[in-house]
Amino acid sequence: MARTLYLIPNTLGETPVQNALPMEVIGIVQQLKYFVVENEKSARKFLKACNVMPPFEGVVMHILDKHSTPQDKIAIMKLLKEHDFGMISEAGCPAIADPGADLVLMAHEQHYEVKPLIGPSSILLALMGAGFNGQGFTFHGYLPVPQVERISKLRQLEAFSADTTYTQVFIETPFRNEALLADIIKNCSPQTYLSVSCNLTMPDQQIITKPIDKWKAEEIELRGKPA
Amino acid sequence: MARTLYLIPNTLGETPVQNALPMEVIGIVQQLKYFVVENEKSARKFLKACNVMPPFEGVVMHILDKHSTPQDKIAIMKLLKEHDFGMISEAGCPAIADPGADLVLMAHEQHYEVKPLIGPSSILLALMGAGFNGQGFTFHGYLPVPQVERISKLRQLEAFSADTTYTQVFIETPFRNEALLADIIKNCSPQTYLSVSCNLTMPDQQIITKPIDKWKAEEIELRGKPA
Repeated sequence: MARTLYLIPNTLGETPVQNALPMEVIGIVQQLKYFVVENEKSARKFLKACNVMPPFEGVVMHILDKHSTPQDKIAIMKLLKEHDFGMISEAGCPAIADPGADLVLMAHEQHYEVKPLIGPSSILLALMGAGFNGQGFTFHGYLPVPQVERISKLRQLEAFSADTTYTQVFIETPFRNEALLADIIKNCSPQTYLSVSCNLTMPDQQIITKPIDKWKAEEIELRGKPA
Repeated sequence: MARTLYLIPNTLGETPVQNALPMEVIGIVQQLKYFVVENEKSARKFLKACNVMPPFEGVVMHILDKHSTPQDKIAIMKLLKEHDFGMISEAGCPAIADPGADLVLMAHEQHYEVKPLIGPSSILLALMGAGFNGQGFTFHGYLPVPQVERISKLRQLEAFSADTTYTQVFIETPFRNEALLADIIKNCSPQTYLSVSCNLTMPDQQIITKPIDKWKAEEIELRGKPA
């Protein structure tokens, strides 16, 4: 019988799990004992919200984050040998804009059945909500941190998007959001459309889409928020 | 009070809605009266599965598909004036690899609140499940139909992927799946990794990932299946 690796989406922020995941996914989480998690604190909070009862009895967690080495990953796969297990990110879908893809590939090599489960992805929600081309798009993760390189990358993505009509999707950390927005408004063409999604799936969610010449930095409060 | 456009993911194939959508999403669907749908038959099936009761009383559907003209879209928005409404694809997430993005943009221009809801996207599930780079990826929709152009595009995507490490994601219609797989196996480098996802979220789901030199066309039965 093949072992199974379940890829388990976590909520984005404080959304209740019942609002973010199908009941079937919560049921699968309740039956698993072995997890690979990006962040132990978020994972414990998530399991508690899924009513894993009595709290965490017999639950084993291994950490896989951006600091994990290839040796760490081999060790995790050895420890999990013979077991079904689930992979949980700090937020959103594991292995997309988050660690975990290497381990999924190792699981394929070791003939696990891989089952991605349905749940929130900020990338996908932002793309649906933007009203931009969803027939062709590129996700870039984070843009460069040094401002000169960031602006050069923004201009490159803008030119690529104008050439190909492919939507360009990127994310930024809460504490750099405002600087990135200011750079976009200042350095991109006034006619280019920009969509910003902030606090997705939360009660104060905002999705604003319009040409850059109509954007003013102050109309969306981004400081400290996932966007 | 702002009107709201809800972007409602549909199931992929025959999956029960309870397995594919959070309860909150089903609750929102039950309260809406106005819908823009890609395919009326799938939309009716979906509403029935969501227990919209008594069946469809007062429910109004407008069709938006790949044949809709800009004038059709303006007309739909006029008819929906003052109403909250939901957009439903034939399968998966509206406005992603499906029509609808234009109408989302029009809704932004008319100051609707846009709320993308959580549900299945075959693109995202395939990317999570592949074990490939999820920090940078490009979705291309369908590849060209004529074989010579399709092979040239495949080679171009393969070279781009090798240069950038970006995962290249594309879809194909059930009746062309086998021909596409055969072209990939025959024309791409033996070392390139290929992942094929078939019948996602269904009981006979298959996700196979390995280098092309280990792929044989017959190991996955693709004829007539969404993949």
